[in-house]
This record gives sequence, C-alpha cells and structure tokens, in this order.
Amino acid sequence: MPIRPASTDDVETILDLIRGIAEYENLTHQLEATTEKLQESLFGENPVAYALVAEDDSSGIVGYAIYFYNFSTFLAQKGIYLEDLYVKPEYRGKGWGKKLFTAVAKIAYDQNCGRMEWMALDWNDPALEFYRAQGASLLEEWRLLRFLRPELEKLLK
Amino acid sequence: MPIRPASTDDVETILDLIRGIAEYENLTHQLEATTEKLQESLFGENPVAYALVAEDDSSGIVGYAIYFYNFSTFLAQKGIYLEDLYVKPEYRGKGWGKKLFTAVAKIAYDQNCGRMEWMALDWNDPALEFYRAQGASLLEEWRLLRFLRPELEKLLK
Repeated sequence: MPIRPASTDDVETILDLIRGIAEYENLTHQLEATTEKLQESLFGENPVAYALVAEDDSSGIVGYAIYFYNFSTFLAQKGIYLEDLYVKPEYRGKGWGKKLFTAVAKIAYDQNCGRMEWMALDWNDPALEFYRAQGASLLEEWRLLRFLRPELEKLLK
Repeated sequence: MPIRPASTDDVETILDLIRGIAEYENLTHQLEATTEKLQESLFGENPVAYALVAEDDSSGIVGYAIYFYNFSTFLAQKGIYLEDLYVKPEYRGKGWGKKLFTAVAKIAYDQNCGRMEWMALDWNDPALEFYRAQGASLLEEWRLLRFLRPELEKLLK
C-alpha cells in the first residue's frame, strides 16, 4: 500500500524529510526536532500527533504527512489540523502529495471531524494552487501569532 | 479567584459568549455550536479542548478562553493553541483579557510546551495591538486553508 501509518522505524527517515521541508520554507533556523523528541511525540505514552508515510515500491519513503486533532468553537466539534505535507523534490508531480492529502482527509471524514485545516506560506504558489484545485477555502483575513518559550517566560515574570 | 477552569455548569454561559465572539467577527453564519456538542467537547469522555472563565465577584462570568494542544514538527514538541479569547464588551479595558491570556500562557509554560499560537483577523486592530503589546510575533506570511465536510466529501467521492 503506498500510503500507510508511520511506525517507530520510520522516525529517522521522517526527520530527514522534515529537514527538507524546513529548507524549502527557509526555516532551517527554527528546526529543533531530534529523533528522540519526534519518537516521543508520535509514539510515546501520550502521542500528540500522527504521521502517515508515502512509500514507493522501489525507492522507499518519498513523503509524509503529520496531523493532530484541533477544535472549532463555532462548530463545537473536533477537527484535523494538517501540520505538514511533504514530498521529496524528485518525486513531485507523480500524485504522491494528492494521495497523502486524501488519506488525511479520509481520516477527518471517517472520524466525523467538522473540518480539516492547514496553513501555507503566501509565496508558496505550487502549494496554494494544489490546495485550491482540491477545493479548499483560503481564509485571507486570518493572521497567525506566536509566543516561543522566551516570550512566555517574559510575560509570566 | 478571578480566572478558573470552566465546569460543566458554565457551558450554557460560555455558549452565550461564543455567540458574542461570532457577532464581533461577522461569522454568525458559521456558528453551529450547541450546548450538547460543547459539553461533549469540553467535558465528555475524550475532551478535545479546555476552557477557562473570568469571573467577576458581582457580575459572574465576563469572559472565557478555550485552548487545545497542538504540535510543531520543527520543535517536535507539543504546544498550546488558543482557539478563543473573549471578554464581554462592557467589561473590556479592565484587564480581564490580559488575565485570561496570561493564565493560558502559564499553562503552556508549566506544561513544557514549545510554543503558544493563536490567530486574529487582520482588521481586528484592538486584538493585534494587545497581542503585540504582550510581545507576540505576527507571522505575516502564513495563510489558513480549510475544508468543511462538503469539501471533504467531494474530494473523497
């Protein structure tokens, strides 16, 4: 099967792909993931996220998706948030991205989620075009805000 | 104590406040929350979100915050996503918003979350100013994308 849930044996490979996505997004300086932390987050006692991998018969893992459950107050219902969707550059344009995306959508649908959400960078035209082609709504007005631990600390001092 | 975790007795009141936020954001048409669904999401067998309320000694509940746990691939660590922060119009400017916000930040910090995130509408200047004053980063480049169940269904057909 080309798309399957990740297993603990895949963690190292997924981390390599995460490095790929960070480079593509010019965000390598934000990368603090380690094998141990990823292992714990996906397969520890209290998993906080879930991973699917796309596996090519001859080439092995060529892409991955990571998602977690979120919540919409307006729907008062859980949803799925797609944190990452990535296919290695040399395997793009072959349908792997669509297969991964559809697999996550199926989980959202089957588990009675009210919606599925994700984010993309506003300059990432291939991604935005792909998502528009799948029928997604782009919510132009919303802006993301963030605290890292130093800002949390500063507020709480 | 002015800020406390919500209890099942508060669900009806919180739903009233959710109606207030929907009106303020011009999103009343998206509101599908009911007491039963909110009760189940916050206090059912598998809670998907958590609520704090701000309680004034004489006026009762004047605001609420709802959050859930998210996950950052780059940090390989859980975080907190602040889904809603709301104070009734007539109680604004008295510090309730800051108290609620700080209480959620404290939970994120104490539970070793790598970050805390939330979203605001790009025309909601009072909110954006408030968050900037707390030291938050505004991630200008990110755009939100969404599927509701009809789009999920269409993709999976």
